[in-house]
Amino acid sequence: MEKLTIVKVGGAVVEDPQQLAALLDNFSAIEGKKILVHGGGRRATKVAAQLGIESHMVGGRRITDGEMLSVVTMVYGGLVNKSLVAQLQAKGVNALGLTGADMDIIRSHKRPLKKMDVSKEEAESLISNGMAVEKDGNTMVDFGFVGDVDYANGERLAQLLNSGVTPVVAPLTHDGNGNILNTNADTMASTVAKALAEHFDVTLIFSFEKKGVLSNPDDDDSVIPTITRALYNKYVEEGIISGGMMPKIENALEAVEAGVKRVIITLATAIDGNHGTVIKN
Amino acid sequence: MEKLTIVKVGGAVVEDPQQLAALLDNFSAIEGKKILVHGGGRRATKVAAQLGIESHMVGGRRITDGEMLSVVTMVYGGLVNKSLVAQLQAKGVNALGLTGADMDIIRSHKRPLKKMDVSKEEAESLISNGMAVEKDGNTMVDFGFVGDVDYANGERLAQLLNSGVTPVVAPLTHDGNGNILNTNADTMASTVAKALAEHFDVTLIFSFEKKGVLSNPDDDDSVIPTITRALYNKYVEEGIISGGMMPKIENALEAVEAGVKRVIITLATAIDGNHGTVIKN
Repeated sequence: MEKLTIVKVGGAVVEDPQQLAALLDNFSAIEGKKILVHGGGRRATKVAAQLGIESHMVGGRRITDGEMLSVVTMVYGGLVNKSLVAQLQAKGVNALGLTGADMDIIRSHKRPLKKMDVSKEEAESLISNGMAVEKDGNTMVDFGFVGDVDYANGERLAQLLNSGVTPVVAPLTHDGNGNILNTNADTMASTVAKALAEHFDVTLIFSFEKKGVLSNPDDDDSVIPTITRALYNKYVEEGIISGGMMPKIENALEAVEAGVKRVIITLATAIDGNHGTVIKN
Repeated sequence: MEKLTIVKVGGAVVEDPQQLAALLDNFSAIEGKKILVHGGGRRATKVAAQLGIESHMVGGRRITDGEMLSVVTMVYGGLVNKSLVAQLQAKGVNALGLTGADMDIIRSHKRPLKKMDVSKEEAESLISNGMAVEKDGNTMVDFGFVGDVDYANGERLAQLLNSGVTPVVAPLTHDGNGNILNTNADTMASTVAKALAEHFDVTLIFSFEKKGVLSNPDDDDSVIPTITRALYNKYVEEGIISGGMMPKIENALEAVEAGVKRVIITLATAIDGNHGTVIKN
């Protein structure tokens, strides 16, 4: 099968001109078919603040009320996405900016109220802002216009790729009833990778601020080269992998178990497929 | 040749929920291949004001400095475009949002300094804001990041249309060097229509706030049914057509002389091709 590389890049990289320039050079240099999936959270927070709109985060996830939905639609779908597209075009990459609504590529449904583990003060603040309710002693958070993904249309993405187009995907989906929803960029990348696994030999690259998954958090060079399900269980048991790295790797293992050939976790400046930690079956 | 309908809708319609709903129903009902080109100027002015950015207009055209470019990229490319795409998807139209940068559809170059006829006060204000210079006694206005169109890629638009996609085009272009530029929506619509004239039997519909070109500005029903170059010259001579309507019709006549089958000027609620003024060869 033909190779396809999907690179997910976070908001921090997109907003740093130097890192962004390096990323775009590296992304442009990837041979063959490719897709870029981007975040943009910090820029959205900044624009929201300039507009006098407060950002609320619970468990690291943004609460998206109506005003914040307008902001993320502007910032992710407009400012960040179109800037990336124009810069890639200048490098000879035939980029096309997409949200999930475009060509009905990714559908989602509004996240139902979700039980979250928050402090008493946080719960009270959320409830007074209409962003949570108390039910049976639990704090049920309303994340607002956040979309949990139902499916990605792999056929249409494959058609675009086969016609020489490089999709640049913003972390926005739609519900099929006319509403844009805010969706986590990591989830967007995994969803797209899984939907394309039957069409291509897919490498999914998550770029972040470390060289890879580290066996010693104090040693930036202690990159674990390969992780399989068996190795992951062993590392977790030994306490080598813990905390925030666990859901990232669980998510990667799920992707490879769903047919993605390999997931790579690496630095944003090292997305050539030869660096970082490889997660595979 | 197969029929293609291109509808241009202005910002005023896009921002009025009732007019927008009617427009989207009418647009969805158009049979066969179609493209929607939208403005969004008033919304951009509003968001800019909320961000503390002043809007400067000269001769009805927006001056686009760096901050304003961010605003129009957010508002036109994100907020307005993606909302239209999501709502059309809900009506079963396979919409795809595009700026000129996406798939390199429309290229432009930054507008050179332009001699404009402005009052002394306006000239002084523009010059003090760094938006104009005095040269040989003339006021040369720097419109900033405004793109004058070089070409539209009709082949790629035709491919999208032939694959069942309905492009929704925002009034943004790119210069091929990584920069987004702000481009007039009427110009975008004419450019797209002319580029597709060799592929389709193109009807270009400009929707606005009147029923058509009126022979008596005080009588909303005095719509002139048909205008050709010869009739236009006659109407201008007789003073029946004058002022702001002239460049609109000149632009339409240019489009039909470049191969567009007919241009229709009509109400936003009457875009079925059977209302308004038809401009043809």
